[in-house]
Amino acid sequence: MDDNAAQSGGGRRTRGEGRGAAARRASRSGGGAGPSMPYIRRKIGVYEVLDEEGLSIIERNADTVLEEVGIEFRDDAEALDMWKQAGADVKGQRVHFPKGLCRELLKTAPSEFTWHARNPERSVHIGGNATVFAPVYGPPFVRDLDGTRRYATIEDFRNFVKLAYMAPSIHSSGGTVCEPVDIPVNKRHLDMVYSHIKYSDKPFMGSVTAPERAEDSVAMAKLVFGEEFVENNCVMLNLINANSPMVFDETMLGAAKVYARHNQASVLSPFILSGAMSPVTVAGTLTQILAEVLAGAAFTQLVRPGAPVLFGTFAASISMQSGAPTFGTPEPSLVSYGAAQLARRLGLPFRTGGSLCASKIPDAQAAHESANTLNTTLLAGTNFVLHAAGWLEGGLVSSYEKFMIDQDQLGMMQKMAMGVDLTEDGQAMDAIREVGPGSHYLGCAHTQANFQTAFYRSALADNNSFEQWEIEGSKRIEERANALCRNWLDNYEAPPLDPTIDEALLAFIAQRKDSMPDAFT
Amino acid sequence: MDDNAAQSGGGRRTRGEGRGAAARRASRSGGGAGPSMPYIRRKIGVYEVLDEEGLSIIERNADTVLEEVGIEFRDDAEALDMWKQAGADVKGQRVHFPKGLCRELLKTAPSEFTWHARNPERSVHIGGNATVFAPVYGPPFVRDLDGTRRYATIEDFRNFVKLAYMAPSIHSSGGTVCEPVDIPVNKRHLDMVYSHIKYSDKPFMGSVTAPERAEDSVAMAKLVFGEEFVENNCVMLNLINANSPMVFDETMLGAAKVYARHNQASVLSPFILSGAMSPVTVAGTLTQILAEVLAGAAFTQLVRPGAPVLFGTFAASISMQSGAPTFGTPEPSLVSYGAAQLARRLGLPFRTGGSLCASKIPDAQAAHESANTLNTTLLAGTNFVLHAAGWLEGGLVSSYEKFMIDQDQLGMMQKMAMGVDLTEDGQAMDAIREVGPGSHYLGCAHTQANFQTAFYRSALADNNSFEQWEIEGSKRIEERANALCRNWLDNYEAPPLDPTIDEALLAFIAQRKDSMPDAFT
Repeated sequence: MDDNAAQSGGGRRTRGEGRGAAARRASRSGGGAGPSMPYIRRKIGVYEVLDEEGLSIIERNADTVLEEVGIEFRDDAEALDMWKQAGADVKGQRVHFPKGLCRELLKTAPSEFTWHARNPERSVHIGGNATVFAPVYGPPFVRDLDGTRRYATIEDFRNFVKLAYMAPSIHSSGGTVCEPVDIPVNKRHLDMVYSHIKYSDKPFMGSVTAPERAEDSVAMAKLVFGEEFVENNCVMLNLINANSPMVFDETMLGAAKVYARHNQASVLSPFILSGAMSPVTVAGTLTQILAEVLAGAAFTQLVRPGAPVLFGTFAASISMQSGAPTFGTPEPSLVSYGAAQLARRLGLPFRTGGSLCASKIPDAQAAHESANTLNTTLLAGTNFVLHAAGWLEGGLVSSYEKFMIDQDQLGMMQKMAMGVDLTEDGQAMDAIREVGPGSHYLGCAHTQANFQTAFYRSALADNNSFEQWEIEGSKRIEERANALCRNWLDNYEAPPLDPTIDEALLAFIAQRKDSMPDAFT
Repeated sequence: MDDNAAQSGGGRRTRGEGRGAAARRASRSGGGAGPSMPYIRRKIGVYEVLDEEGLSIIERNADTVLEEVGIEFRDDAEALDMWKQAGADVKGQRVHFPKGLCRELLKTAPSEFTWHARNPERSVHIGGNATVFAPVYGPPFVRDLDGTRRYATIEDFRNFVKLAYMAPSIHSSGGTVCEPVDIPVNKRHLDMVYSHIKYSDKPFMGSVTAPERAEDSVAMAKLVFGEEFVENNCVMLNLINANSPMVFDETMLGAAKVYARHNQASVLSPFILSGAMSPVTVAGTLTQILAEVLAGAAFTQLVRPGAPVLFGTFAASISMQSGAPTFGTPEPSLVSYGAAQLARRLGLPFRTGGSLCASKIPDAQAAHESANTLNTTLLAGTNFVLHAAGWLEGGLVSSYEKFMIDQDQLGMMQKMAMGVDLTEDGQAMDAIREVGPGSHYLGCAHTQANFQTAFYRSALADNNSFEQWEIEGSKRIEERANALCRNWLDNYEAPPLDPTIDEALLAFIAQRKDSMPDAFT
């Protein structure tokens, strides 16, 4: 777990280039976006909503679910055979777990690990007091800078990777930042993984939509990091959703097996819309989440003991009037806080939250829902935050403007996580003595010495007078976000990539694309 | 402190009407706004950012400020004489406090008390695990339902009182919900207090802009509650700002003296824009806030031992580029969390937060800033939340649309504060057993039994599909808020007021208005 070395730029990850150049690039990265910030090491505590008794009730209930109800593994016989050999009671595809089996298996899972980037300066720590932000994952649509809602393309994909690369408080370029639907579905994972490698040097996620696509992701990672390095280190996080309630399907299990075998991390995430995929109550939802994570995460340890795995939770509810998903409401926040506690007790890194919303546009609804989710995410002590920027319309849309607004908020969370400075300078007694009653602090020595770093500076908030704001066109924040986004994309500079690696990647992609016909479903 | 009796409708507060009628009205209150909710009794814990060592450092530093730097009391000789007699070291208007003096004086201040409404069903508890929401306070402008930004009028004032009365999760109709600038400055307090009594039966705040206006507020309260009741119970909270740094001015001291003498509560609030009125650091700001509150709150106990007083904190920063106030940023959140801890250690109820923002319109900037402030407010364990709804443009504007959006968010906070239900029904094991793997919970018995109360229902969030939203006009949330606001105002029904009380109030106002010439500055 040499995260300190990774943090300080030690090691050499990208074949063919030395660390000096990488370090210099890191320090000037981001074009007009400002200096990049390392992942968060939280100095503030976590907020908890369950006491020992509550946690025990949920843990006991989850054990009961695992034993009595069981979890379905809709795989070929392999997964079921593995469970039989491990001592589970397998009936058809339903696996019943003797009490304690999953927890016992999970003892080999690391509680913390390093997620390596091709630029070692960008490697991040997963677990403990670390928090890592990654962009939205999955939308088939975008809302573009001309205000049009349309299907996403590979150009949009590249743009969001570039933006995530430039955003100072985003620490990973993510995974499926949008679905490039202009590329055949059986080939697009190649372009997606390539885009992450080519246009960013932050850590990225692998493809999970089929086992062979997971294998392709691993193969491409090996071209970048080297074969041996990949087999011994985590270079990809991979989103493995449970098909809640209480099912893992063949696709997800197939991908999980590939990644675990290659020592890559699974983000084992029940995807929960409470009321539809879980009970309408917080405690019932937490029970089901824990049962699903215990079974799914333990499975990764059956595949390869020691493979990294995260306790994931995607928490939302449905409207009981319309059945539509809702976000940023109190119940999913309670679920996230509770799930984080359960993950800590299990000793697994935790994923939840982001900037989730149901709104169709980046208006105050989107912002309230996103802010409620994001504040919860930070204070819960979340280690990996998917969907931290760009999510709109229940995850159907990647929005450029929302991405910019969200990344600004992520900067605020990053500052918040630093907590209260209690050094002598932080105490500021000299300032209070110098200024005294009835004066002001604007020009005092302490203010002069600290004003540049004192407060988080938003590039998007308008704090001017009404009159000044009016003179400047009475703009909404999304108009300023639009302009800033165009500015960033105009100023984007790609991080260097060794041409021999680039050629090897392109050759691999060409060979793989030639090997199969296009498929669009 | 018979808050339980108040909560359950015990006692008889409004002269001339019985409690049965009041109870019936309370249950159907709010017109189209849904049933009114009682003030919050938090079942969730508080979030804290300072450990014991950090708290001790700040407390020690505040003691040093009080002793060495001192606080100015810019009053006639009375306040300074009181401090001399209490053992302080008074030099001119500067008061230096021997260590421990303020804390000793504060031992007589109640840690919790009831704030009585004229309808006993609406009385609220201040302190402990109670949280009370009140609307925006102070703006001279409104942004009206036609989208115009203009000076506020008494009609606007009445409207905001009506909306606060109707809003289910607002527990007080507040104080200066906007400045009715169409009424002479020396008379408008009479119309403001009357509006609170006439158009709402929730607890309200008194005037603090001059000692005689405070006296008028007390006199009007006595016409409603009876003379003896007022002298023995709190019927008004009153906002007493420190003139930071480290000054209390004559106006505020004058009002504080009036209210304390009549046993009414002071919300003793340093009004802090960090970087201008306090140091640029969180710890330095907390030190100054604690020193100011200790001096100001102790002063109320010199006036009348036992008079209720709150530890207030208005936390914001300034932009170090432009000097403009900023809101919803991380540093004021840390200040609020820390100040809440200091208040608990001092045994005083705590006021901070709200839905603060700098944005000129209810866009995503306004929402992010407000949500960051409001989430902090709730988790800090704040007892009295001024500016909980309607605040726009740094407090210069009361916005109808923002009020509606905010009050919806207050409902979410209220639900959040209920925490996790761990009853057998909450655990939902029957539901998990009934549904099992691969099915859904939409129709199961547990969902059927709980769906009506399971999740917070927003009246403003649009969770529909994109297509449905488009059919309905592609509306932003503020358009829906506008329509809902018009609906509420159309459906407003005044709570009954005993005609003899009403006549007495009107006669008092007429007599007072006749006694002085109009003044507009």
